[in-house]
Amino acid sequence: MTISMYQTAVPTAIRALDNLAAILGKAAAHAEAKKIDPAVFVNARLYPDMFALAKQVQIASDTAKVGISRIAQATPPPYEDNETTFPELIERCRKTVAYLETIKPAQLDGAEDNVVTWATRTSTRSMKAMPYLLGHLLPNVFFHVTTVYAILRHNGVEIGKQDFLGKLDLIEAA
Amino acid sequence: MTISMYQTAVPTAIRALDNLAAILGKAAAHAEAKKIDPAVFVNARLYPDMFALAKQVQIASDTAKVGISRIAQATPPPYEDNETTFPELIERCRKTVAYLETIKPAQLDGAEDNVVTWATRTSTRSMKAMPYLLGHLLPNVFFHVTTVYAILRHNGVEIGKQDFLGKLDLIEAA
Repeated sequence: MTISMYQTAVPTAIRALDNLAAILGKAAAHAEAKKIDPAVFVNARLYPDMFALAKQVQIASDTAKVGISRIAQATPPPYEDNETTFPELIERCRKTVAYLETIKPAQLDGAEDNVVTWATRTSTRSMKAMPYLLGHLLPNVFFHVTTVYAILRHNGVEIGKQDFLGKLDLIEAA
Repeated sequence: MTISMYQTAVPTAIRALDNLAAILGKAAAHAEAKKIDPAVFVNARLYPDMFALAKQVQIASDTAKVGISRIAQATPPPYEDNETTFPELIERCRKTVAYLETIKPAQLDGAEDNVVTWATRTSTRSMKAMPYLLGHLLPNVFFHVTTVYAILRHNGVEIGKQDFLGKLDLIEAA
């Protein structure tokens, strides 16, 4: 068995977003238990010119959705970025995962040398698919999921790194 | 060209640690320019029961060093975790990168189905090498590098996501 572009990209991004949804669920339960307005967490940020939690979730979703679509040469569904509550943000993760589950291995495997092109505010950029996946797409997804985790930890939500890593594919002892 | 275990693991971890070293360099320059004791940043944390910056750097280093060694069935050099300054933490990143550069593709390629086993405080865990790399090792490295970034941003250091992503392998326009 060799390692494939699909396996490296899609299940990894799905796992990150599933774990993000679970973390958001714990934050919602924490807010309810402590009788704190959930909007305080949804609008929290670590510094005035950093994005608030809701935007971090939206970018994690978009980075996975748009990035994998670029490699697969697929057209991702547009999202409105209008989530303002924990249930809406969890649904954002879920629908992103549901979209990623429609991507077939054949759309990514063999695409290592495809050229991915995208526009920034100031220029057009191109990368080969593999360095784009490993140096841009996946780091970006983990960056924004970790930032959500950091915002919640900074605000006292009781989560741990196991929530970020999620359930591991452990081999059971014989 | 297919995607390989080595390419997925080693250059990705090296890039993350190189970017971490650059971020720490910017933080050291910021402390000097603002006449702030650098130890304030090195000992900063986002919540009382989270690890401080220095420990986050040490764990990012160890996760890469130990994790890749486990897959490669290599014995990594021990580090003492005694860094207390920015130059020492940057050197920690640099020596981790130098060690990872000694890992040969042949030590990882073909190791997808190797079983990786490690002890936690309470049990022994085993995973196949590929889910270990994609679901544990790389997420962990990005988690701790991002947490360092978050601690520094929270404390006013002027860095941006481009510092976290580092120099991208862009294709130059013709």
